[in-house]
Amino acid sequence: MCAKQWIPEGVGEFAVTLLKFTDIETSGEVHWNMSKNDSSCGCGKYELLQKINNPAQVQELSDEQLTQLAEELRQCIINTVSVGGGHLAPSLGVIELTLALFKCFNLDHDRLVWDVGHQAYAHKILTGRYNEFHTLRQKDGISGFPRMAENTYDHFGVGHSSTSISAALGMAVASDLEGDNRNCVAVIGDGSMTAGQAFEGLNQAGGMKRKMVVILNDNEMSISTNVGALSAFLSRKLSHPVMNRFKKDFESILKQIPKIGDDLAMYAKRGEDSFKSFFTPGMLFESLDFTYLGPIDGHNLNELVDVLEQVKKMDGPVLVHVLTKKGKGYTPAEDNPTYFHGVGSFEPETGRAKKFKGGLPSYTEVFGNTLCNLAEKDDKIVAITAAMPEGTGTDKFREQFPDRFVDVGICEQHAVTFAAGLATLGFKPAVAIYSTFLQRSYDQVVHDVCLQNLNVNFFLDRGGLVGADGATHHGVFDMSYMRHIPNLIFMAPKDEAELSRMVRTAIDFDGPAAVRYPRGVGIGAILEETPSTLEIGEGELLRDGFDGVVITVGSRVWPAVEAVEEIDEEYGKAVAVFNARFIKPLPEQQILELASRFKKILIVEENAKAGGFSSAVVELLVDNNAIDGHEIKRLGIPDEFIEHGTQLELRNELGIDTAGMKKAMVEMLGLD
Amino acid sequence: MCAKQWIPEGVGEFAVTLLKFTDIETSGEVHWNMSKNDSSCGCGKYELLQKINNPAQVQELSDEQLTQLAEELRQCIINTVSVGGGHLAPSLGVIELTLALFKCFNLDHDRLVWDVGHQAYAHKILTGRYNEFHTLRQKDGISGFPRMAENTYDHFGVGHSSTSISAALGMAVASDLEGDNRNCVAVIGDGSMTAGQAFEGLNQAGGMKRKMVVILNDNEMSISTNVGALSAFLSRKLSHPVMNRFKKDFESILKQIPKIGDDLAMYAKRGEDSFKSFFTPGMLFESLDFTYLGPIDGHNLNELVDVLEQVKKMDGPVLVHVLTKKGKGYTPAEDNPTYFHGVGSFEPETGRAKKFKGGLPSYTEVFGNTLCNLAEKDDKIVAITAAMPEGTGTDKFREQFPDRFVDVGICEQHAVTFAAGLATLGFKPAVAIYSTFLQRSYDQVVHDVCLQNLNVNFFLDRGGLVGADGATHHGVFDMSYMRHIPNLIFMAPKDEAELSRMVRTAIDFDGPAAVRYPRGVGIGAILEETPSTLEIGEGELLRDGFDGVVITVGSRVWPAVEAVEEIDEEYGKAVAVFNARFIKPLPEQQILELASRFKKILIVEENAKAGGFSSAVVELLVDNNAIDGHEIKRLGIPDEFIEHGTQLELRNELGIDTAGMKKAMVEMLGLD
Repeated sequence: MCAKQWIPEGVGEFAVTLLKFTDIETSGEVHWNMSKNDSSCGCGKYELLQKINNPAQVQELSDEQLTQLAEELRQCIINTVSVGGGHLAPSLGVIELTLALFKCFNLDHDRLVWDVGHQAYAHKILTGRYNEFHTLRQKDGISGFPRMAENTYDHFGVGHSSTSISAALGMAVASDLEGDNRNCVAVIGDGSMTAGQAFEGLNQAGGMKRKMVVILNDNEMSISTNVGALSAFLSRKLSHPVMNRFKKDFESILKQIPKIGDDLAMYAKRGEDSFKSFFTPGMLFESLDFTYLGPIDGHNLNELVDVLEQVKKMDGPVLVHVLTKKGKGYTPAEDNPTYFHGVGSFEPETGRAKKFKGGLPSYTEVFGNTLCNLAEKDDKIVAITAAMPEGTGTDKFREQFPDRFVDVGICEQHAVTFAAGLATLGFKPAVAIYSTFLQRSYDQVVHDVCLQNLNVNFFLDRGGLVGADGATHHGVFDMSYMRHIPNLIFMAPKDEAELSRMVRTAIDFDGPAAVRYPRGVGIGAILEETPSTLEIGEGELLRDGFDGVVITVGSRVWPAVEAVEEIDEEYGKAVAVFNARFIKPLPEQQILELASRFKKILIVEENAKAGGFSSAVVELLVDNNAIDGHEIKRLGIPDEFIEHGTQLELRNELGIDTAGMKKAMVEMLGLD
Repeated sequence: MCAKQWIPEGVGEFAVTLLKFTDIETSGEVHWNMSKNDSSCGCGKYELLQKINNPAQVQELSDEQLTQLAEELRQCIINTVSVGGGHLAPSLGVIELTLALFKCFNLDHDRLVWDVGHQAYAHKILTGRYNEFHTLRQKDGISGFPRMAENTYDHFGVGHSSTSISAALGMAVASDLEGDNRNCVAVIGDGSMTAGQAFEGLNQAGGMKRKMVVILNDNEMSISTNVGALSAFLSRKLSHPVMNRFKKDFESILKQIPKIGDDLAMYAKRGEDSFKSFFTPGMLFESLDFTYLGPIDGHNLNELVDVLEQVKKMDGPVLVHVLTKKGKGYTPAEDNPTYFHGVGSFEPETGRAKKFKGGLPSYTEVFGNTLCNLAEKDDKIVAITAAMPEGTGTDKFREQFPDRFVDVGICEQHAVTFAAGLATLGFKPAVAIYSTFLQRSYDQVVHDVCLQNLNVNFFLDRGGLVGADGATHHGVFDMSYMRHIPNLIFMAPKDEAELSRMVRTAIDFDGPAAVRYPRGVGIGAILEETPSTLEIGEGELLRDGFDGVVITVGSRVWPAVEAVEEIDEEYGKAVAVFNARFIKPLPEQQILELASRFKKILIVEENAKAGGFSSAVVELLVDNNAIDGHEIKRLGIPDEFIEHGTQLELRNELGIDTAGMKKAMVEMLGLD
């Protein structure tokens, strides 16, 4: 068995090297590149499912058939995800809701926008992708998120949260202008509802009074547990003291009113819950001029269909509050919805992980541990996450320093300005966030943090290619959208030991700092017990040479070392490798000195080449007249969106792995 | 009188040239560079005001003195703004509120965050800046917005809307951690409240239940009139039908309840409005776990002080709803608050503009007119603004095509995704927005528009240096934060005639497009009646030469022509000028051809040099091995935040005006 088959996604090339030259025994099954003809997901056995090629067919099914279809969908999703991983719990939670939507709306004409889209597996299977579903999230297979380019029934591409209401409202306005009377439906979770953009959409929709439908899929959590007043409000069981005082009086009023029109009758419809539905969740949305219906049992198909049929007849903006259970119908996921939100391969019978465990710590863990260690000695450190304590490794911080841990919910903009507020009073906030999600806060990073030169520290997990989550989740723009911001320092570590030093360097630096590191595990580098700080703007010459130099940063450093080692071995040429460590400020003097010594310069980054790290190096060389007589080549992400695939596959395809760097340098040296 | 004295801010250097060589008669007074010792603003005559050096002194004043101080502040602000321009109406609206806040809170310990900050003139004057106030918004004078670096009582720097609640909450959490019991107050307008980030902050604050104060400054408008459900809700006079039905019953309940605690008594305090305050504006904020107080008359100092004194004693998050009038106390501003929101110089007695009118159309007007002309023939064009119809020139479109005009409120994120929704159904949305405000929507531009390759068109007004509004409003990052986004095309016109062609080119291009143009007036270029489209990615060689080339784009093109004309005249050297027109896709073949002909290349942009236009040109040259033997120089915005000053002053200081380009090229040619 070749080494490659044993390397799961998330393991860097350097670890591959280690594995190639050592005898590490690995265990567990890894399906990282299942062929399209592989039928091991067991999708072949679903009687009804295999006959559904388009949404219209769902409308013809009887109640019994719909119930059977729900069960088949559930099994198909569990089996498929158990093999290749994916967003299990969210998709299991909306199976009945998906069927009800398909039953009641005409997806050839009406528009359906899934917020985030990690819950759209049933939607995918029912829209002609049953036979491809086993290729989910694999290279050249179907995406884990709705994508307009993938299927005509994916009416809007998604991936980041809270865009659905805005998009569906745009469609509703388009339909009004065309006069073609489309129902436009957004399905949004209660977690996504906390993001400001959702509120912007609701506010505008309420103000416009145009017909549109928002389905609030309330499972009482975002990815992790939910936070904020809205969440408390939605789940409040009549517990507000003022509410309780009034409850009796209101109920008696409701009884006195015989029938004051359809609107009110609708509110009062569910007797046992009339007060709650009218005066608690409802009043927030009613105050924004939405007609509120609910709460509805999101796993009761008949009830869902009844309500959606009513909704179709209503005018103006309508919000349907649906209660669902994340992971519904699969006990392990119901019991641990956070773990099964996005999960690797597992045994379908038990839910037990089949995930490869190489024993190497992930960058996420190293960051989390380092921050905890630093926070023990520095009570000014505050950790901030936007709804992802587990994903960002700050869950340990939450346990250890609950007072200094803040989960703001899915509110990246607020997270950054909130951190800036803390920093004005001498605190050192650590904003732990995925690279792709900080895109939401670009303006706040510029204005609230960098313009004011505050000690806010950004820890960008999932910098670079992330793998199976694809185009909406790759962190390949951060060097381009952060590098031009004045006052900021910006680092990327070559391995987990350097990450830990950068975490300390960022916190100690009295100004804005960012560190970006990749998804996956490190290379087994030994961490300093108390990490030492780095000189700001100083890189390291990891390996010297005579014939050329590779200038790189972050995840590409060790693969570069490997590439030049192979060149040395095979061709007897000595190529230097420079680890810049800092994207900003660039180690200017060191790079200029390298340029004075080497005519052949290969610059490599796991970021868009446009405006990224290599762009900064080139600017430096040009501005210092240090380009004459040089041959310079840049490797990085080209000017296109990169789809899903494993990190190894993508890096290989883009020529930024060891093989790609070797090939480029061999060409530059004229050895090919 | 030298020509310069006659050139107001907003007029490009090329127009300066025109004026120098023609006999255009200009009229009107222009105070664009008032000396610090100039006392013409009349600030010397304010008896009480001139004695106030710090906020604590306000606390010692009697009621009568406070009333006099309010009057003096009003006069001082009107007189000063009438000379140099500024945000008049917002600042006049909060004079009593400012005094009440200064009276009740200890600004040496408590924290006060003004949202946006364009209403903070009284705050500035009362915090030791009375003597400098006449330098407002002038180069080296005080900023038009609160800035931490300017004054210790500017507790948080602002400029863009809706950050105040997040920042004040961060301060409140910091105060809790320190145990130093600071009152943290955010003052936010009802317009700013529509932005998602405000909701994110409210939601988090409500969930945390920590003590903090939000003052909702409700003047029933943002910059222009307000939009959305929230606005309708706040101003609703018991008009909701369901509300009306219940009103009588609720009132009778309220009467039956003798006194159920302080909370309720507080709600019921203002007898004549008890129902409204409890069940309309209040219920939205109560549902987010804020204690709601109001509405309060924002121009009644005693009432404001009473309520704020109560607020200080309360726990948890409190929202005080204050009703104010924009422009209060100055009839012209009260009558036309949109015009007087941000205004140029005017006659204080009448409000009549003293603004220089050169007869040249502004870029804003040319854009607005062109869009209207195109929309007459193409009913798929929809105009979208985020609360700035007048500022973006879409007010004419609103009149002409009301059905196809959407003002989304201060909701830049929603604006972009909403446009994407429209585009999925074949519409061609034109998002008209300031360059600096599109920073709020970076993620939506990437994901919702460019990743899906939709025909959404961004018209970025105020690209480049904006002048008096300073660091928070310069549009100097757009080329850097947009250039790396795949699928997007990005243009910048050399003059208003080219702008009109680019507007059409963007709309016609079947994919995402952006055009950025400067603040101010054009050069008098003659517009084509029906603008012709441009070849995508094709620039123009405006002037050929032998000795070198200037490669530039947008506002820098005509000044470059002027610079090389002067060089020709003075030194007899022929320098070419290439107008790239496209930042993306770059006119690659044309630029490479120029590089093959010219060894001396000067690249100029009105954008950050890091990752901007010149960076793109340099990447191109390096990637094509077209750098050997070349001398390349880049002029643009350096890696620092640029403060306020006139556009002319700033461009001159940064060396990107005609003189700066001439000097750089003269040096390159060895002529100095």
